[in-house]
Formats: sequence, C-alpha cells, structure tokens
Amino acid sequence: MDNSYLNIKEIQKIVSNDLHEVNNIIINNIGNEVPLIKDLSKHILASGGKRIRPMVTLLSSNLCNYSGKNHLFLAACVEFIHTATLLHDDVIDESKIRRGVATANDIFGNKTSVLVGDFLFSRAFELMVQNGSKQILEILSKASSTIAQGEVLQLTTINDSNTSKELYMKIIKNKTASLFSAASEIGAILSEENCKIQKSLKIYGEKLGIAFQLVDDALDYAGTSELDKKIGDDFREGKMTLPVIISLEASNPEEKSFWIKTIENLDQSSGDLNKAIKLINKYNGISSTLTLAKKYSVEAIKSLEKFPQSEAKLALESLASIAVNRKK
Amino acid sequence: MDNSYLNIKEIQKIVSNDLHEVNNIIINNIGNEVPLIKDLSKHILASGGKRIRPMVTLLSSNLCNYSGKNHLFLAACVEFIHTATLLHDDVIDESKIRRGVATANDIFGNKTSVLVGDFLFSRAFELMVQNGSKQILEILSKASSTIAQGEVLQLTTINDSNTSKELYMKIIKNKTASLFSAASEIGAILSEENCKIQKSLKIYGEKLGIAFQLVDDALDYAGTSELDKKIGDDFREGKMTLPVIISLEASNPEEKSFWIKTIENLDQSSGDLNKAIKLINKYNGISSTLTLAKKYSVEAIKSLEKFPQSEAKLALESLASIAVNRKK
Repeated sequence: MDNSYLNIKEIQKIVSNDLHEVNNIIINNIGNEVPLIKDLSKHILASGGKRIRPMVTLLSSNLCNYSGKNHLFLAACVEFIHTATLLHDDVIDESKIRRGVATANDIFGNKTSVLVGDFLFSRAFELMVQNGSKQILEILSKASSTIAQGEVLQLTTINDSNTSKELYMKIIKNKTASLFSAASEIGAILSEENCKIQKSLKIYGEKLGIAFQLVDDALDYAGTSELDKKIGDDFREGKMTLPVIISLEASNPEEKSFWIKTIENLDQSSGDLNKAIKLINKYNGISSTLTLAKKYSVEAIKSLEKFPQSEAKLALESLASIAVNRKK
Repeated sequence: MDNSYLNIKEIQKIVSNDLHEVNNIIINNIGNEVPLIKDLSKHILASGGKRIRPMVTLLSSNLCNYSGKNHLFLAACVEFIHTATLLHDDVIDESKIRRGVATANDIFGNKTSVLVGDFLFSRAFELMVQNGSKQILEILSKASSTIAQGEVLQLTTINDSNTSKELYMKIIKNKTASLFSAASEIGAILSEENCKIQKSLKIYGEKLGIAFQLVDDALDYAGTSELDKKIGDDFREGKMTLPVIISLEASNPEEKSFWIKTIENLDQSSGDLNKAIKLINKYNGISSTLTLAKKYSVEAIKSLEKFPQSEAKLALESLASIAVNRKK
C-alpha cells in the first residue's frame, strides 16, 4: 500500500467538526428517559469507538460536496444500527470479552443488551425518518434486514465444517458489507448525485466492508499464544471463518478430525487454539485471507478513481488501506 | 358490556378479505432466502394468532373509508413489530411456554429468536418505507422505540417490590399501548382524515392497548391451580404487575414478607403461586385490575362516538369489549 495514505487520526481530523456533531446527536438520542438505556448505551457508544462507519457516511457526503446537515444524523443512524448489531452479537455469542474489553452483556446482562439493542435500532429508524429521503430509508432498512439475514445464515454455519467459501462470502457480504455499502451510498444520495456516482460509492462501501471483515477474521487467529485474549473468539465459538475453511480444505484426514472435534463438536482443550493456529498457518490460511482482503481493498480504492482528487477522497482511500494494514 | 357486540370470529369475517391479503404479505416477506428465518417465522407468524393489532389497522382504515392497498402492508408491519417483540420477550423472560404453547426460543434456541426478531423488525421497516407516508413512518418508528423503552423500564422493575402503580401504568402504556395506538392512528392518516379524527383513533388504540394489557396481567393470576400452565408466568419471573402491586400495598407485614421472598428474592416453592393468588384475591387485586381495564375499554369505545355507525365502528367497539371480557 501507498505510503501517502493518511492514518486513522489524520482521517478523524478531516471530519472532526462533523464527528463532534455526530457524537452530540448520539448522546442526545440514547434514551435519556430511561437511565438503564442511557447507562448501557453510554458504555458502548460514548466510550468512543473508532466510528469507522459514520466516518464513511461523512466522507462520502464530503466527496459529493453535500452542504446540508442530514449527513450528521444519518451517520449517527449508521452507528446506532452497528451498535445494536454488536449488542445482539455479543448476546448470541455469549461473549464476555470483545477484543480484550468486557462486553455490555457481561456487565449489564443479556436481557438489557437485547432490549437496548432494540431501542438503538428503533431510534436509528426514528432519526432516519426525520432526516432521510424515501430512497435513503429504503437503503438503510434494506441494509438492516440484510444484516439480520447474514447473521442468521452465519448461525446456521456455526459448527458446520462443510461450510463453503461461497457461503462464507455471502455471509460477510450480508452481515458486514451491507452496512458499509449503505453508509457510503447515502453520501451520494444526499447530494443528489447521478446514478453512476451513487453506484461507485455503493461499491466502495461493499468492497471496504468485505475487506474489513476478512481482516477481522484473519486477526482472530493472528497470534502465537492462546493466552492472548484478543484472539481465539471465533475458534471457541466454532465459527466457520475463511482461515479455517482454507485450512480444512487442504487438510489430511488426521487434521480434518482435529477440526471436526474442535469446531464441529466444540470439544476443545488446552493447546487446541495453538494447534489450530499452526494448522491454519501450515496451509497459509491467514496470508490467503489477507491477500483476498487486499484485493477487495484495491477494488474499493479503484471504485473512487473517477472522483477528482480531494481530502475526502484521500481519506476514503486511506480507510481502505487501513482496513487491511491494521494489526487489531 | 352490551350484548349487541360482535365476537372475534364475526369481526374477523368483516375484514376477512383484507386479513387474507395481510397473511399473504406476511408469508411473502418472512425470509424466503434463509430457511431458518422462514421456519421460525412460520412457527410464530403463520401459526395464526388472532391478529388483533393488524385488525385494528384494517378496521380503522375502513372506518375512515380508505380505499387503497397500503393499509394491508402497514397491517403486516404492525404484526411484524409485534412478533419481533414477542420473540425477544420470550428470550428475555427465558420462557419455555407462552400460555400453554412452546415458545420459539424453546424450539429454535435463544440465538435464532434474537436474530429472527431483528429480521422481522427490519423487514417491518422495509415494508413501511415502501407503503407509508413520512407521517406514518414517524408514528411507527416512534412506537417501536417507545416499546423498547417500556420493555427496559419493565426490566428495571422486575423483582422490585417498591414498584408504584404509576410506574406500572407508564410501562404498559409504553410496551403495549403504543403499538395499538399507532396501529389505529395509521388508518386515519392513510385516509388523510382531519387531525381530530386522527387523534380520536390514536386515543382509541391507546385505551384499547392499556385495557388489553391490564386483562393479560389479571389473567396471569386468574386460576385456582398452579398446575394450570396458562397462569403464573409473571409470578415465576417476579414481574411487578398491577394485581401484585394492589395486594402488596394492602398487605400486612407477614404478607409483605411473602411477596418479598417470592417476587423480590425469587425464592419460590410449591404452593407459593396458590398462596399468591389467594393474597391477590384477598385484596381484590384481580377484580380491581379488571375494573380499571373496563374503564379503559369504555373510554376506548367513547373515543369513537363521533363516527357515524358502521360495521367497522361496531367491530372496533367490539374489540374493546372482547379485550376485557375474555377468559384467556
């Protein structure tokens, strides 16, 4: 990747005024009437994630020279939908830790996480109805139902060692890329740009989202010690992600038995995660996943080629570069 | 109540053509791409509930002489939102049985129930974006976030014997009456009726919803044997519903200890549900709850008084009567 790309802090700086307003919108809309909603929402939303998805909306609006205020509210919607999904994911996965940090369900309980997820989801719709056109509402509501379909599809492949690469790709397109794609398409629609530009930004978001998820799934095995709390979540849950699928396809019968025991039967003991990592690396599971991610990142950047050079364009290109060059 | 009211089958007959089309819309929109979504949705949606809420939308549209087709899609939305809430409720309550029938989470697991709930919720929004005006979208999205707020509020009062009647009323208004109210208000808006008529139908739905929930909460203690699987759900979960609140307020210290032991500490043993029922009846907890429900039912009917007599009006009045005269 090109060294002229910006880092995440430089990107955040470009949209810092907008991001500040998005944060205010988020704070003003997280259930001020019910203290428990506010507490949990603050834990997960106000703790300051990287806000990648809302940044995509802000930057794509900038790229299309949008000059209104609706992009701020829609960026907050995107973050609400993402957060609602995270909350429900952690309940589904029975996660106590997400990348080293205690999950909301571990602190507040599963019940609260399910219901606050529902609240954030509904509040997202309230906000988008107030600030979006019919076309934007269509895109965001479709993205939401696509996410849910992807999540259910993923559930049906958990512990299923026969999961194909094609099905895996369909799942990550649905559960992750659909929201990225909606987030970037919105910018063009707000600016009433032509269909071609709209489609370019839609593709940018989709490619970025796929790259993002591929790297996430690779990083979950990118370690050398199973004591590292930031890795191994997917293995422990028996999720069929690309590194495992690649390794499984190439495995000899003895190695296949190992995957069936650990992923399909969830019969895991000390040392199994290390062995899984070794098997994945033996068949280049991580490097192949990262190579595929890079291909999508390059395609994301290429989808922007018709836009004249600008700060926003550089920032979007840089996000696609960061997605595949990060270590966590 | 007046004997000239219709029974539920007679009401269903009035809107049978519309209901048939609503059922088709429901079937066509329950995740045909992902078999697991379809299976679970069919279990809960196609098993043919009474469809009270969508009927309210259909009847209020009829009452306002609406002649288009959007009411059919919006009625399906209302049922989707209701069903999503039910699915998440049963996960929250860890219910295995809802009024004598196995819950979806018991058959399909909590994970699937959470995610299919999310799907139905998103699909509801997709449908309403395609078929509703901005005003209708505002009403339905606000109803959804109000429901979630009511559910979280209810969660904070579970096992809390100090829950006041006022807070209980706020909870049921939010978690139940808000959707009934939105369901009936939609009819007036579709028909572009004036604000006064819109407000009357909004009030009708709100009063009906409150009456409905009060009766639900009374019926959960309306039995004589704790072997009856249709009663006692709220008691076992430690929910603070009106029959308990009424009994608790009037209790002597020994009785108060019983409630604290069973509802607050969830320390329940054989015979406790029977004892709870006796204590509730000692202080007229059920009859007072039903009396309040009847007051709301009368108010619901009264809110329709300015409409000329019609089949739809009679059906809506009858629904309000049925809400408080049912035994299950």
